[in-house]
Amino acid sequence: MHKAPSPVINKLIVFGVGLIGGSCALALKARGAVGEVVGIGRTRANLDDALRGNMIDRAYTLDEDWTQELRNADVVLLAVPVAQMEGLLKRILPVVAKNAVITDAGSTKQDVVAAARCAYSSCSEAAFARFVPAHPIAGTEHSGAAAAFATLYENKHVIVAPLPETDADAVQKVVTMWQTCGAQTLTMPPEQHDRIFAAVSHLPHLLAFALVAELAGRPEAETFFMHAGSGFRDFTRIAGSSPEMWRDIALANRDALLEELDRYQTHLNHMRDELKRDDGAALEARMKRASDARRHWEKVFQSRGRK
Amino acid sequence: MHKAPSPVINKLIVFGVGLIGGSCALALKARGAVGEVVGIGRTRANLDDALRGNMIDRAYTLDEDWTQELRNADVVLLAVPVAQMEGLLKRILPVVAKNAVITDAGSTKQDVVAAARCAYSSCSEAAFARFVPAHPIAGTEHSGAAAAFATLYENKHVIVAPLPETDADAVQKVVTMWQTCGAQTLTMPPEQHDRIFAAVSHLPHLLAFALVAELAGRPEAETFFMHAGSGFRDFTRIAGSSPEMWRDIALANRDALLEELDRYQTHLNHMRDELKRDDGAALEARMKRASDARRHWEKVFQSRGRK
Repeated sequence: MHKAPSPVINKLIVFGVGLIGGSCALALKARGAVGEVVGIGRTRANLDDALRGNMIDRAYTLDEDWTQELRNADVVLLAVPVAQMEGLLKRILPVVAKNAVITDAGSTKQDVVAAARCAYSSCSEAAFARFVPAHPIAGTEHSGAAAAFATLYENKHVIVAPLPETDADAVQKVVTMWQTCGAQTLTMPPEQHDRIFAAVSHLPHLLAFALVAELAGRPEAETFFMHAGSGFRDFTRIAGSSPEMWRDIALANRDALLEELDRYQTHLNHMRDELKRDDGAALEARMKRASDARRHWEKVFQSRGRK
Repeated sequence: MHKAPSPVINKLIVFGVGLIGGSCALALKARGAVGEVVGIGRTRANLDDALRGNMIDRAYTLDEDWTQELRNADVVLLAVPVAQMEGLLKRILPVVAKNAVITDAGSTKQDVVAAARCAYSSCSEAAFARFVPAHPIAGTEHSGAAAAFATLYENKHVIVAPLPETDADAVQKVVTMWQTCGAQTLTMPPEQHDRIFAAVSHLPHLLAFALVAELAGRPEAETFFMHAGSGFRDFTRIAGSSPEMWRDIALANRDALLEELDRYQTHLNHMRDELKRDDGAALEARMKRASDARRHWEKVFQSRGRK
């Protein structure tokens, strides 16, 4: 954690001052790395939380007139659900400073790139080159400004997913912003990002939502929930996540997620067959492969200082 | 947490001094609720851990002669994998004190009852009436005596699953033992136990094992694991559990688990169809049902002092 000698960013605009956008603003402010932060969001109540938490200096709802604020912004962070990116970019692009870097925090990248291409279609190539797709791998099952905290990104990864035409200095600005927040940045193409996160994040969310939704739909749900313990608690923590956000992520990364789901269901069917025919050796072999890999993973994860 | 005025148990025999058996012994000793504890287990190394941790006073491996120790035991706790219960009971019954209460800590109950019926088949009905099926709902992904701790059972549930013919005073002895360890006891028939825990424990374990085993089997597994974050960490924590123990549980509760797996796969297929046809409203409705239920569950879980 280092204190920046001069602000990394003079004026930051955060669209969507929730857990992700709010924590970024807080981390930059805590390190003196940002001159001023303007928050723009859907609801006044959440913006008031953000103002009270000193993560933003001024606040506007989306339907207020915030265009003047964008004329001298140097970084615009889009921390809104991925389905809202295109509409928002179309409102931002006509009024934002020419040199501003626009970046996002969406959990999927190919669809954000596609949305950006549409929104930028009437802009110059030079303008599009200042759009930097990115994804901070951080979050909790809570959302909103009230859930934000300055240390959210410490020892977390941020994936930066530039296109071949993206400006190197725009990428560097985004890399520096996230590193200042305490994160480690990694670069990969949007397709690779989406394939990897379909497997290690989007699929687990879908599976956890499915388990809890199925149980909750039973007449005797209360009895079942009453007996659930700490294994259930951890397995289903991510099922408490925002339905709107995860609906958007699932749809945005549909093809990669369907492919992962197919692989998973195939594997699960094998385990089902083994269980049905009492094949303890085969079941144990799969469980052992999982257990060994999970224990190894935990060690590596902790050794990287992640939690 | 109360200090028992006189020992609840004079002599406790623990078969399998692992996380479950070792923590029970530690909790009783911490409250002065047990006169002496004898540990009997498979490996000398684990028994040495248990002796060093002061959870047992004397130790025997299974192939040593421990029969004398059982002649004046008042409680025998079977904390071994469920598949080993029958063989163990057959060795215990000819030598154990006539009035001893024998209880188990197995994660499934109908199969333990069936195993006990076989093992007790040449004994009197009065003897079988002193066998009390039970299941402490506690544990971590770690196992072995070294993982045991005295507060494991505080604010946890223990299910006691007596049969109609089980002695009331034997049940009471087991209830008192677990309550002294800090747990809350609940009574239900073995069938109900198995159906509930198939849904809230055994199925989540199977699903987590399947996810990690599938990923670990890919050539590019390292890349995927490297990018996994805290959602993956919690969702898969239980996949680090003991393969031997979970193989036994899955097989022991096979029918109930298969039924739960069918329900789950049906539900997951619905979500898959919704995803495939871009039906955001239907997906979001399921996710919202899950998210609302999970958030409500967390509040109730915490309000019961559980963690």
